[in-house]
Order: sequence, then structure tokens, then C-alpha cells
Amino acid sequence: MPTPSANYQPLTPLSFLKRAAYVFRDKTAVVYGDKRYTWQEFAGRANRLSHALKKAGIKKGDKVAFLCRNLPQLLEAHYAIPQIGAVLVALNVRLSPREIVYIGNHSEAKALFVESTLAELVESDKLPGIKMFINIPEGETSRRLSEVDYEDFLMTGKEDPVKYNLDDENDPIAINYTSGTTGPPKGCVATHRTAYLQALGKTIELGLDVYSVYLWTLPMFHCNGWARAWSVACRGSTSVCMTRPDPPEIYRLVEGEGVTHMDGAPIVWVRLNQYMEENDLWFSHRVRINNGGSAPSPRMIRSLDSRGAEIIHNYGLTETLDGFTVCEWQPQWDVLSAEERARIKGRQGVVNVTAGEMRVVDAEMRDVPADGITIGEIVLRGNALMKEYFKQPEETATAFRGGWFHTGDGVVVHPDGYVEIKDRFKDIIISGGENISSIEVENVICEHPDVLEAACFGMKDEKWGEAVKAIVTPKPGTNPTAEEIISFCRQRIAHYKSPKVIEFGVIPRGPTGKIQKYILRKQLMPSTDEGK
Amino acid sequence: MPTPSANYQPLTPLSFLKRAAYVFRDKTAVVYGDKRYTWQEFAGRANRLSHALKKAGIKKGDKVAFLCRNLPQLLEAHYAIPQIGAVLVALNVRLSPREIVYIGNHSEAKALFVESTLAELVESDKLPGIKMFINIPEGETSRRLSEVDYEDFLMTGKEDPVKYNLDDENDPIAINYTSGTTGPPKGCVATHRTAYLQALGKTIELGLDVYSVYLWTLPMFHCNGWARAWSVACRGSTSVCMTRPDPPEIYRLVEGEGVTHMDGAPIVWVRLNQYMEENDLWFSHRVRINNGGSAPSPRMIRSLDSRGAEIIHNYGLTETLDGFTVCEWQPQWDVLSAEERARIKGRQGVVNVTAGEMRVVDAEMRDVPADGITIGEIVLRGNALMKEYFKQPEETATAFRGGWFHTGDGVVVHPDGYVEIKDRFKDIIISGGENISSIEVENVICEHPDVLEAACFGMKDEKWGEAVKAIVTPKPGTNPTAEEIISFCRQRIAHYKSPKVIEFGVIPRGPTGKIQKYILRKQLMPSTDEGK
Repeated sequence: MPTPSANYQPLTPLSFLKRAAYVFRDKTAVVYGDKRYTWQEFAGRANRLSHALKKAGIKKGDKVAFLCRNLPQLLEAHYAIPQIGAVLVALNVRLSPREIVYIGNHSEAKALFVESTLAELVESDKLPGIKMFINIPEGETSRRLSEVDYEDFLMTGKEDPVKYNLDDENDPIAINYTSGTTGPPKGCVATHRTAYLQALGKTIELGLDVYSVYLWTLPMFHCNGWARAWSVACRGSTSVCMTRPDPPEIYRLVEGEGVTHMDGAPIVWVRLNQYMEENDLWFSHRVRINNGGSAPSPRMIRSLDSRGAEIIHNYGLTETLDGFTVCEWQPQWDVLSAEERARIKGRQGVVNVTAGEMRVVDAEMRDVPADGITIGEIVLRGNALMKEYFKQPEETATAFRGGWFHTGDGVVVHPDGYVEIKDRFKDIIISGGENISSIEVENVICEHPDVLEAACFGMKDEKWGEAVKAIVTPKPGTNPTAEEIISFCRQRIAHYKSPKVIEFGVIPRGPTGKIQKYILRKQLMPSTDEGK
Repeated sequence: MPTPSANYQPLTPLSFLKRAAYVFRDKTAVVYGDKRYTWQEFAGRANRLSHALKKAGIKKGDKVAFLCRNLPQLLEAHYAIPQIGAVLVALNVRLSPREIVYIGNHSEAKALFVESTLAELVESDKLPGIKMFINIPEGETSRRLSEVDYEDFLMTGKEDPVKYNLDDENDPIAINYTSGTTGPPKGCVATHRTAYLQALGKTIELGLDVYSVYLWTLPMFHCNGWARAWSVACRGSTSVCMTRPDPPEIYRLVEGEGVTHMDGAPIVWVRLNQYMEENDLWFSHRVRINNGGSAPSPRMIRSLDSRGAEIIHNYGLTETLDGFTVCEWQPQWDVLSAEERARIKGRQGVVNVTAGEMRVVDAEMRDVPADGITIGEIVLRGNALMKEYFKQPEETATAFRGGWFHTGDGVVVHPDGYVEIKDRFKDIIISGGENISSIEVENVICEHPDVLEAACFGMKDEKWGEAVKAIVTPKPGTNPTAEEIISFCRQRIAHYKSPKVIEFGVIPRGPTGKIQKYILRKQLMPSTDEGK
């Protein structure tokens, strides 16, 4: 690794802030309620936090954790902590106290900053490694973990520029914990190089520029807001912070602050779309929504598009920090019908420009044909991949076996080369020997006018091995019957794919917003084999 | 340097082509006259050239030279040559035969591809290192250097993908020769990493995307078209090739092909603007012009803006491959008058997002105040800087002394932090976008048998920005004419470098024997604003 010199500098997204603080010194960097910071003020605050942490004994390589919603303080932390060579661990605020203790200890965090409204989640006596708690006062404070408030701590540091403590761009910048579907959460180590390249790649892909206003609908604790915590500084875009992505507040901020870009999972857009439909609302300017987590349904894409919001769909994992693929739009699709365009937009697409390479393979690592039918596993490699699972060399080696990262996601490759997720391998339903994608069936059910959302999974069936069972949440004020929905599906997809049984109820979601099918299976079919 | 692995791949702009050939397989990549290649076809041609070169014995690290205007073949070479680990040397077609021999030998080129219309410039008998000449047939062919034509050579290679021969992103991708400021031209070695980052940075800055159509008004032999040879592949933009940036043809192609982006020096835009003014023409859609070489005049910026073309001004050197700074636009300037906006747009601005860092310093490397008055020298560092001057370690060390690259350009820093060029520390004359070394011209004049000494400097020129003026002291007892000396120069160096005006007289020298050009300028051109 060359050392820093006149013609070589380590790649780091910290350079974006340095530049923004100089070039966009008087332009608004962050908005939160009545608070507004320019880029110069924001950088000054980040520098104060760096100096304060250093003074408090935080050293290169130390981990500093934050338990905090989308407040400006967490955005400051994304620069302040790595500036001194330390590593940010942003915790999901929906975790249980037990999970917070696990991650706090596993990450070896030396300090924990806690938003006051979340203090009850922290069992500080079970976190012996944490030498310093800092309180971030917000709203109604129920409990204090520390006598030291954020602003007082900040003021112990000076706002002078910080000399980066970074020699190697492959040093860690953050550890992001997975939601842990198959065991305890794993810590994905992201490097400065990965963060720099992913932030640049998405700036290109989303068209973020000096006129852009970014609304924090996506939690910053999800992979550093899919690296957007750094992308916003690339061109001096403005961040608008919000602590809960409630539809009326999203709508108010989009209109009031001139928001141009948002990120998030389908559940956010489903609710926003419903709110706008019910209240007959449109955006007064074009808004770009980057959707991730799972595929958006064609119906929602169409509806939001007609209300002024263009959806871009991307696919990534905690292990890739940000989207790895995107449904890159082709000019020749502009002339297609709204239905066709929405159908295409739900695909996961192709690798983005800075991410790396993707293959879709069978169990023997052979590429599957691009026929739109054969399901294979997505495997990835490139600079967007994490360095490792923190302190889990075996799990790291398993994930990267054969020189490719194995995602566990099953996709088909369409003849034009674009991939489309059919399911997690473990969520694929096999009925009469046919593979059924639960997502495909869910999308069809969601086309029904009375349906808010749906989740499908396989149930044991005497004749077919498995059959499709769906749990459906109706829209408020509607009362669809199971027969209606089954018949609706049979008019649109093959009978064997259509649900055989429908139950109405609420769909359980995990801390990242993902549908927890294993809970559904347990609730509804206690006899189901959970081992599959 | 980490070796390529599942989570580390060398940065190279070749990855942009690989992706474009897959994602934009059926989209037009290149247009030249009646020829049109899709990205898949273009990549196939580049692959054929790679395989053909390999078959012909070109190995990793070998240099392959091109003497060719903006033809699709040179664009193909930008991928084909580095794909096998070889290094592209694109020659300026305006050089003299002597200069071509110098660079051909100095670069140690093993092969030379020559556009047939330029064959007369090549003295092949003086290029012993070149083992293979390939003819690129174009227009009226006056002379052939080789029996082998480009297409026949291409067909000796297969169009299968090429396994990149690249382990280290700091390996060279191209050598670009300067015009030679203090003697013979120097070879600036650009790496894969620099080319990747500069190409991405400009994609962001210019907003190149999948809808963009790029017109080749800038010669590809100027720093690989300021790295645009690679930027165009980032989002699958379309390249429109043209061999001479003549205004009527530029206008015809902008309208006919829907061109959205162009690069070039002010002389191109002065002539385009004049043509559009005279013929009362407007662009039917918005065009973005990236100007470099020297600052555009406010009058021209205003006039082109009113005809549909927005000018972005950037500043760079052969040593930085592409622009290092840009006059980054601020939203608050939108409301200024057209005059004010044009005045600001002529500044060189601030560093671009991937380039690195800039300082403006005095002789003791202290930062000058940002007062808009004090002139300092621009010094640079970062990933946009060349690796070295090829085979000139001493010149490299001098240029990078003190850990910063010394540009020799004098600028002021405005209170808002934007820089503006005021003077040249070295005596470079810029004519028609080409850098001319006064010392180089002086040396040629001094070869004339009747000349004792000579001093050259730039004089204002309506058409070219600057032209070369020389003061010549004849040898005692001789009586050369201006015409004789001008003709003597034109036989030895490019026409644009040769003096346009010659005056005879005594050359003032300072105590150390250095020519005092500022006294000459005052004596001979009293009206020149020396303060500029």
C-alpha cells in the first residue's frame, strides 16, 4: 500500500466534508426543525467532536457507538469519529435491550452516545467495556445514562481542522450489524475505500448535486443511511433530518424544504402512497425515491409516479454498505406503457458503476441461463464488499468461499441481463415440483384495490407437497373476502401459484422492516418445520 | 498493495466498458459519419484489438502509439491497449516530424498506428524501436507506412472478453506528452487509478448520464480527451466523433445527433459563437460546454448562454490528466445578472470532488491571503496527479518538491475561496488552446545561422487568444528578414508554435543573465496590461 504522497492519497469520504466546508461554506448543510447549520458550521461541529473524543482518550481503531434516531448529531458522528481513525457503530433503535448489550460488547465499543428517549433500552451495567456514556437530549427525557450532555461534550473540543489519522484506505470506517436472521447479529466492517466509492457511485446514480435536498426517511443506523451520510457532502447537498418517517411529516417536508431525494424500504412508500391517495395529494416538484430492502410493487410504483415521485430500485446488503445493483433505466423504455415501466422498475437490475461484479450461479458455481426462468444465487465481488465479519473469520471465509460473496438470494436473469429477485432460497415455495416466488404472488395480491400489504409462504399440502398461504392486511375501511382475492390472483397468475388459503391480519416486521416469515409460520402453522 | 480478491479490485476505467457492454448492449456507443456501433459492438472491437496486439507480441508495460484524429479507432485503443496491460501514447497531430520522432523514441513505443492523412508526418526510418506500423485509412490517402490496414489487423483477434492484465491500480494506463515548457516534451504517466477517479469525478461534475450525447470537439490526444475517453462509458453515454471542430459541423451534429456535452479550449467556442452570431442560430436544446486550456471571456460566456450553451470552466494540466479545479456553481448565483454570472464563470474555482487538494502559496510555501489581490502559485496534491515524468526522475522530484506539485501558474484567491489565474510563473504562451514554451521556440530561432539570440512571449491575438512574438538579435554582419526566420521555424516546429511577428533589437538581461521579459513587454507593447 503506497503511503500518502503528493500523487497518492487514501480514498476516504471525509474528503467530501473537507471540500464542502470550503466550497459550500455558507450553504445549508443540515436542517432539523428550527436548527440550520451551514457546511462550515457543520464541519466545525464535527471537528469539535473529533477533538473532544481524542481528549477523552478515544484512539485510532477504537469503536464508538451511537444509539440515536436521525438527528444531526449522528450525521456529525459519521465524520468526527473516522477523522481521528476511530470506528462508528450505529445501533438500530428497534433492537431489544438484549441485542444492544450483545452488539455493545461484541463491537468492543469504548463510548456510547444515547438519545435520551432511548435510554431505557440500554442496560449499562451489562456493558463493562463502555467507559463513557454521552446523553443526547431529545424530546421527553425519561432517563439519563450520563451527566454529560452532547453539546457540553462538544464544547470541550475546538473547531479547528482535524489532521486525519488515516494511512491506509482499507482501514475500517464503520461496523454495521446485520439483523441476524440465522443467529446473533454479525458486524460488517466497512472501509474508507468502500464508503468513498459507494458514496460517489450513488451520487452519480441518483443525480445528487448542489441543488439536491435529501430527506432522512431512511434510518442512518442502516448501513450509515446506505452511505448517504457521506454522499450528501459530495456536492454540498442539504440534509433534512426527521426521526420517524410518518407520511404527513414526509409530505410536509418535501413541500416545505423542497426535498428532491429520499431513500427507504417499500413499507415507507406504501404508507406515503396511501396517505397521498387518501388525501388526494401531489408533489409540486419531481422527487426521486431510491427504494431498497425489498422490491416495490408495480402498483405502488405507478401510483407514486403519477403523484410526482420517481422510484429507482436498488439491491444491496449490510455486507455491501449501499446498493450493489440498480435497475439502471434505459432510454428506450421511456415509450412503454405505465404498466410495463412499473413492471421493469421492480427489477434489481445490474451492478452499479463503482460496486463490482455480479454472477448468478447454480450450486456448482455455473452461470445460469439468462432465460428469465432459471433461478440461481446472486454472488458478488468488488470494492463494495465489506472487509470482514468483525471477529468472525470462519463466517467471513464461508461467505466469501470460492472468491465470491454468497448472498443467499435467488434470482432469475432476464434475456436483457437484468436480474430479478424471486426469493430468499429458504423462502421459495415448491408446489408440485414448481418453484414459486412468494414475492411474485405478494405483488399480485397487492394489485387488489382493497389490499394494503401481503406476505406469502409455503404450507404443507397432502397432494402438492406445498401450497401457497397468504396473510393479508386489508386497507382500512375495506373488507375483502378470501374467495375474492384468490379469484383475483387466478385471473392473473397460474393456479398453482395462487394462494390456496388466505388469512387476514397484521404482518410482523423485524427491526429492519423486513417481513418476519418465520414468526408468521410459527403463529399460523405451529406444526411447520422451522428447520427448512 | 492488496491483491485482487472478492472484496478488493484494482480501480480501472476499463470496468466502465465491461459494464456498458453488458448493461447498454444495444445502445449506441459511437457515431462517426454513417458508422454506428452499439456498446456491445464497440467492446467487441476493442477486444479484437486487444487480442490482435497480444498476438503481434505486445506485452504488459509495452507502449503503443497512435497518431490519429478523433476517429473511433483511437477510442477503441483507449480500452484495447490497457486491457492487455500495455500503455497508450496518443500523439498530437499538430506536432512536427522532428517532435514525433522525439516522442516516438523517448516513449519506447513498440507499435505506431497512423491515420493515412497524417502519414507524411512520420519519418519511419528514424524510429528504430517501432516494430509495427498499422495504417488507419481515412479520406484521401497520400502515403502508406504499412501494408497492414486497421480493420485487417483487428480481424486477426477474436472478440471474446479479455482477462485484464492488471494487478496494481497504480500501473500506467497512458503517457501523455506535454508541449515542453523548459525543453523537450515530458511524458506524464497516468495510472489506472487516476484515470478511474478523474473519469468518475467529471461524470458527476458534468452530469453525464445515459441520455448524454458527447461530441468530440476536444482532441483525444490531449490527455485522452481529458479522460473523457473513459467517462463516456460510465453511464453508457454516446460518443459522436469528428476530426476537426469546425463550427458549421459542430452545429450540425449538436442538432442532428442531440449532442448534450462538449469539451474544448476557448478558441473552439469563440469560433462557434461567431458562427452562430453571424448566422443567427440557436441550439434547440440545452448543451453543456466544459471549457479548459485558458479562461473563457465573459462576453463569449454570455453570448453562448443566450444561444443555449452553458459554459463550465475548469483548470488542469497534462500532469493532472483532466481538470483539477472547476468553477463549481453555487445556487445563490442564479439570481445575479448575466454580466455577473459570466464574470464568475471565468474563474478556475475550487478542487473537483475526486482530484485532491490545492494550495496557493508564496515562494516560502506560505498560503497567500484570500484577498483577490495577492498572487501566489497553485500547488496541488492528490490522486489526480501523474505518477511521474517518464524516465525523468529529476524533473519529477523538482515538480513534486515539498510534497506538492508545482504548477507554475499564478493565481489570486477570492474571499469566497475561488481561485482566478492572473499570470503565468513560467513563460508559457497559450495559442488556440495549445501550450507553447517560449524557450522551445527561442531555441529553434537560435538555430538559424544568422541569429545571435532570441526572446519569445505571447502577444494578444484576436483569433488564437495569444500568438508568439519574438525579439531577435541578429549576428553582427548579418541581416536576416522576419519572413526568413518564420519560415525557418515552420520547417522545424508546428505552425502554431512558430512566431507570427518578429522584431529585431537588443534583448535586455538581468544581473544573472536571465532575459527580462517584463521589460521587453513594456518596451514593445506599452499598451499591454501588465497587472493582469
